Amino acid sequence: MDITKFVANSIGHWRSQRSAHHLAFGHFEAVQSEIDIIALPDDDPEVIELCKTYNIDPQTAVSPFRMSWEGQSDWDDNEIKGTCVLVPIPDPTHPNRGKLLRDRGYAETMAAAGDYHLTEDGTFVLVTAYDRAAAEEKIWFANPNVRCRVSLIKTSAGSGVVTASFSSEIRQSVRS
Amino acid sequence: MDITKFVANSIGHWRSQRSAHHLAFGHFEAVQSEIDIIALPDDDPEVIELCKTYNIDPQTAVSPFRMSWEGQSDWDDNEIKGTCVLVPIPDPTHPNRGKLLRDRGYAETMAAAGDYHLTEDGTFVLVTAYDRAAAEEKIWFANPNVRCRVSLIKTSAGSGVVTASFSSEIRQSVRS
Repeated sequence: MDITKFVANSIGHWRSQRSAHHLAFGHFEAVQSEIDIIALPDDDPEVIELCKTYNIDPQTAVSPFRMSWEGQSDWDDNEIKGTCVLVPIPDPTHPNRGKLLRDRGYAETMAAAGDYHLTEDGTFVLVTAYDRAAAEEKIWFANPNVRCRVSLIKTSAGSGVVTASFSSEIRQSVRS
Repeated sequence: MDITKFVANSIGHWRSQRSAHHLAFGHFEAVQSEIDIIALPDDDPEVIELCKTYNIDPQTAVSPFRMSWEGQSDWDDNEIKGTCVLVPIPDPTHPNRGKLLRDRGYAETMAAAGDYHLTEDGTFVLVTAYDRAAAEEKIWFANPNVRCRVSLIKTSAGSGVVTASFSSEIRQSVRS
């Protein structure tokens, strides 16, 4: 599994169930959402712009994509809605690892660059350091149409886990 | 990470939050429980009995343990309570993999033997085939006191995912 294959396998329209465990309070949050993942052309202006923000040559980008989501949490009545551009930059010497740029982070809403690697069993692991937190995500395919994602939000020191969440995503269509 | 270390790291009393996603219905189930994991001596009568059930030499068993749990689901009012003996039997030629015997299964209540392996990043992966289902579990430590567990229940053919569940477990004490 390389990043090109992993992104290709992720393209489509997904129905997601996400459970977030807020560990200090033992609280469960349930989120239902629809997720669209679409491939972007290498010369998409937003991809080039994001590379420039990080002083990275856009020619080194591989399989850029856009992820959009829309859903509802049982925590409050606000609609959860967002979109972001993601750009993998593989390490030229270690093709199974690299940087993932995104124009909007997971734990905070600013742009963020994380470090990813793909394990021998095809799990995509992403570690992102933010100002006040660190996020660790693992994403893998249970089968071609079921994707699992575990996200841990840790304190910025990296040891305490604040929130652990799990998404099971079922592909509704290979087109978004 | 080998099985001895993995079991040693798991010993203790844990508070668990588990979310089960019943995929066909988009239903969320929330379970809160307390889990005790205690080491058993190699010559524990139940360990020896379980090995005999599978025609396995008890001398090949490594780090047997007992897991007990007690909790409450929001699905119904029945108390969830159980205990089982687990016995790892490492493969003599591939020490990072082997069989895990248990006197009570996860997807069905009969005794079950699963195949485990430990990945390079320390994740314990267990695959168990039952009569009418297959279970795939991944367990890893986010830090020494936080354990994550993803369990997938698949159709016995192995492709369709029926239930995907996620536990975050916080160690309350190294003693059970």
